[in-house]
Amino acid sequence: MRSLVFSLAALRAGFADGLRAEDVAGEALARADAFADPAVWISRVRNEDVIARARALDALSPAQKALMPLFGVPFAVKDNIDLEGSPTTAACPAFAYMPPKSAFVVERLIQAGAIPIGKTNLDQFATGLVGTRSPHGAPRSVFDPDFISGGSSSGSAVAVAGGVVCFSLGTDTAGSGRVPAAFNNIVGLKPSRGLFSGQGVVPACRSLDCVSIFALSVADAGVVFDVAAGFDPADVFSRARMPEVPVEAGRGFAFAVPRAADLKFFGDDEAAGLFEEAVSRFEELGGRTRRIDFSLFEEAAALLYEGPYVAERFAAVGPFVEGHQADADPTVRGIVLAAKARSAVELFEASYRLEALKRRAGALFAEIDFLLVPTAPTTYRVGEIMAEPVKLNSRLGTYTNFMNLLDLCGIAVPAGFRQAGPRKGLPFGVTLAAPAFADSRIAAFAAAFEAAQGLAPGGPRRAAEADEGFIELAVVGAHMSGLPLNHELTSRDAIFLERTKTAPHYHFHALAGGPPFRPGLVRVAEGGAAIELEVWRLPRAAFGSFMTGVPQPLCIGTLDLASGKKVKGFLCEASGLEGAEDITSFGGWRAFMAAKAARESA
Amino acid sequence: MRSLVFSLAALRAGFADGLRAEDVAGEALARADAFADPAVWISRVRNEDVIARARALDALSPAQKALMPLFGVPFAVKDNIDLEGSPTTAACPAFAYMPPKSAFVVERLIQAGAIPIGKTNLDQFATGLVGTRSPHGAPRSVFDPDFISGGSSSGSAVAVAGGVVCFSLGTDTAGSGRVPAAFNNIVGLKPSRGLFSGQGVVPACRSLDCVSIFALSVADAGVVFDVAAGFDPADVFSRARMPEVPVEAGRGFAFAVPRAADLKFFGDDEAAGLFEEAVSRFEELGGRTRRIDFSLFEEAAALLYEGPYVAERFAAVGPFVEGHQADADPTVRGIVLAAKARSAVELFEASYRLEALKRRAGALFAEIDFLLVPTAPTTYRVGEIMAEPVKLNSRLGTYTNFMNLLDLCGIAVPAGFRQAGPRKGLPFGVTLAAPAFADSRIAAFAAAFEAAQGLAPGGPRRAAEADEGFIELAVVGAHMSGLPLNHELTSRDAIFLERTKTAPHYHFHALAGGPPFRPGLVRVAEGGAAIELEVWRLPRAAFGSFMTGVPQPLCIGTLDLASGKKVKGFLCEASGLEGAEDITSFGGWRAFMAAKAARESA
Repeated sequence: MRSLVFSLAALRAGFADGLRAEDVAGEALARADAFADPAVWISRVRNEDVIARARALDALSPAQKALMPLFGVPFAVKDNIDLEGSPTTAACPAFAYMPPKSAFVVERLIQAGAIPIGKTNLDQFATGLVGTRSPHGAPRSVFDPDFISGGSSSGSAVAVAGGVVCFSLGTDTAGSGRVPAAFNNIVGLKPSRGLFSGQGVVPACRSLDCVSIFALSVADAGVVFDVAAGFDPADVFSRARMPEVPVEAGRGFAFAVPRAADLKFFGDDEAAGLFEEAVSRFEELGGRTRRIDFSLFEEAAALLYEGPYVAERFAAVGPFVEGHQADADPTVRGIVLAAKARSAVELFEASYRLEALKRRAGALFAEIDFLLVPTAPTTYRVGEIMAEPVKLNSRLGTYTNFMNLLDLCGIAVPAGFRQAGPRKGLPFGVTLAAPAFADSRIAAFAAAFEAAQGLAPGGPRRAAEADEGFIELAVVGAHMSGLPLNHELTSRDAIFLERTKTAPHYHFHALAGGPPFRPGLVRVAEGGAAIELEVWRLPRAAFGSFMTGVPQPLCIGTLDLASGKKVKGFLCEASGLEGAEDITSFGGWRAFMAAKAARESA
Repeated sequence: MRSLVFSLAALRAGFADGLRAEDVAGEALARADAFADPAVWISRVRNEDVIARARALDALSPAQKALMPLFGVPFAVKDNIDLEGSPTTAACPAFAYMPPKSAFVVERLIQAGAIPIGKTNLDQFATGLVGTRSPHGAPRSVFDPDFISGGSSSGSAVAVAGGVVCFSLGTDTAGSGRVPAAFNNIVGLKPSRGLFSGQGVVPACRSLDCVSIFALSVADAGVVFDVAAGFDPADVFSRARMPEVPVEAGRGFAFAVPRAADLKFFGDDEAAGLFEEAVSRFEELGGRTRRIDFSLFEEAAALLYEGPYVAERFAAVGPFVEGHQADADPTVRGIVLAAKARSAVELFEASYRLEALKRRAGALFAEIDFLLVPTAPTTYRVGEIMAEPVKLNSRLGTYTNFMNLLDLCGIAVPAGFRQAGPRKGLPFGVTLAAPAFADSRIAAFAAAFEAAQGLAPGGPRRAAEADEGFIELAVVGAHMSGLPLNHELTSRDAIFLERTKTAPHYHFHALAGGPPFRPGLVRVAEGGAAIELEVWRLPRAAFGSFMTGVPQPLCIGTLDLASGKKVKGFLCEASGLEGAEDITSFGGWRAFMAAKAARESA
């Protein structure tokens, strides 16, 4: 259990193999207890309540469990979102209240089987992108405790990146759900405005706020998205999902990036290099790059940070802050109280300007599939932020501030690590954005990028994982679940990821000899078929010992999957096929073995 | 020409019969010159320019003319909308500027063949519903010069109701395109926000302003609407038309009206009675009435008139008014300058409230086809308005203020005349409203109401029309256009309205005798066919003399049209069919006569 990755696929595979929700919940609690960073949580759900909820899930019938897409999945909730039974504080103890029920979105997740572990730290009132503006301390990047975690959804990002929970909820008004994803090497999904109800969420800028998702992968975030999104008549800003045009596999696409003159990294050359690598990666995936004048987005961002839109923060918590000045973070207090002076005339004028910018953005997006930007231009040490809390914070929002004002959806994905310089070893991320209601479309492009990158998400591996990451391995024969050699995987803490097929150009053979009976998979230039397989995720450290057990004529090469993805997996040397039976027509080892058993018993 | 009604159908019929655009333009100029009310126009297009434009139209080929849905149609433009060659003043001479080109909407109308006659008076900066806030004087109701015309689009409404132009453009932020329609017995169409570009329009509340249409009928307004509506990328508030669900003929429908306790008429009992009559009329048309709590609409209206939305007026013209206080109407000046003090926080708070109201309105409209309200609760004498310029103005907006804030479209239609009391003889109107993009749907219901009412629109008839109104008459034989007895209609100043068919349950005969050859139309219980006919509009005063020329066995009864509408028209006594030839299979008189001619020449 200690090395069980809290990905949805791994958890689902575990539950399919008999793991109980109680086991996972217990592990999550143990990880939370053991986690080094003391600033992640503002409050925890009582252990016995977590276990009780897990046991209740375990007691359900298989049919009931099958209806729960998040069965037994531990998650964390940013502490400006209501969770029944826990106080909501928005990182301001004087503001705390006990919510009568969970937020609309939280309730949907719980109904789908997810298990809340606790409430996470944040920049007070979700005002900040740094994670340092909290009386509960500053969570740190999981890669270096000198560096900020990013905010405002600081604790939620760290809880996922640290492997404590499978996913978490943040909120994202100006980047709070994306910047911490970049700083912790995870996915941050900021949905289209209104798809996630704001009911039960402490407002920051009510017309712009989005509840957001942190997860280890685009796929995991997508599952949570599907559960969480839903029209809520009680939230006046709620909007129903709209049908999306699916991305056509194999078709080219176009994406925009800021032209060189408009790309700002504030001296972080490694980040600049990683961004260009990401651009190249998308080009390799079939994308046509368009370098654009980025000023419209910069101007929209300025409306939020320097214009009258900040008045919305006063509308949200201004009267409270006025009455509790000593209880508020000084930086947050300054921002909120200054907002009171803005006039309605200014706001109308800014809204006209914003509409014009929206029009220009619309014209751009009519010609591209998505905008690609760095998630954040750089990152800073905690001490640097403390010294310049407003200026450096503003820099972090360079590529995030404009999105909600322009009614875009965005998804932040990991994009590698700095290899040198003062931020060596820290992760970098990119964000894909498009007009509202393209959430699944941009996620599809993000998933392609993620697969092409092939990086392990989240923070540095602990213990058995030993910093080494994983290898995905396709197995086609006796290593599959329930078959005689499966223990060679499970004994090495491998995780089942998926059952799928090869691309349709393989021949498949039953090799001579055995037991154990062995299959031989061979890629062919013409003809062939799609052959069933399982993909497992093996700790990289364990792969060497696994490989030593792979006998001739078998080998580990690269397989084309039906999805187009390539993974390492079992192949067979052509020379090893002597005496072998061509079993391609069975489509897979299980079918062949079943037929063989039937034949022999007949 | 003097009695030619400037309806689109009449003008089109005239042009089809050889009337020239120059004739109509000359008549419009003559009517403008002769019109009694001196406050209608702020500026007129020079007569020679009007005539030159008309001649240029006359010089076009028939094919070119056929592409112009508004060929030769005279219209007026509210003087806050740019017309190339005329100054735009917004009823503030110090504000005047010479526009470099016509407004987007005006240009579309001109391209469609319409001929601008001049710029009309308005409440200064479109701030008012009374028509009295102008240095150019107060236009008066065409029914009584003691009474206001309504505003702010005062001159545009009077120009149409007075028969000077066929249609006109107004603007409508809080009722300015509807209230004057009610006070002058014409149609006022306030489109969905953004369907008519605001480019070239002096803003009042820029995010809410709509250019609007005044016309004599729903059908005429619909033609102008189709020409004027169009996406304009240069107007950030422009929106493209959306597909509408058509109204199914003969199907029932549901409409909401304010419950009795929420209906305000400020003592105008005749108006209250006329509103209930309108409700009954819609019920006769198949409508189910739902009496609703009207408070949500009242609250939205209060946000506009008493809340921070007024700040938008300062954003529009505030700096000008501050610098030209002596040039501004005192009431307008007071409203605009007071708006400066509103805060952005207030505006955000109001916007949240408004979103909640929109949600409630959406739930209501999901269950009804339209909301029916009085267009205005009552009307006032000019002197009354002068004594209480703000309070009485506010009352007039009771049923109009909320519509743009709630993103509704509306169409105001005449609904009869007060028969007694201090406002005896003044018209009353009702407005149908529904969420944006239902413009054609509510127009269909409005047209059904208009047809059921059967009232002549516009002001009191002049000269030959002698206050008597019209009768629509279906002719099926030699009275049709170009046939031997058509002169019996045209000599009585009848106007061709449409060519259509009966419902499909008539037999049609060629009566014995002649010339002139006469048809006999008979409604049958079973079988039958749809028979071609023409509908003409005959001054009611001329109908008596026309009737005297209708010989036995012909009679004037009520015909069912294919549309479901009923009109008066020619029928034949059954006893008169002896010796007649059943010509039902020809489908109409023209086809029969053509076959007869072919037979006889053969």
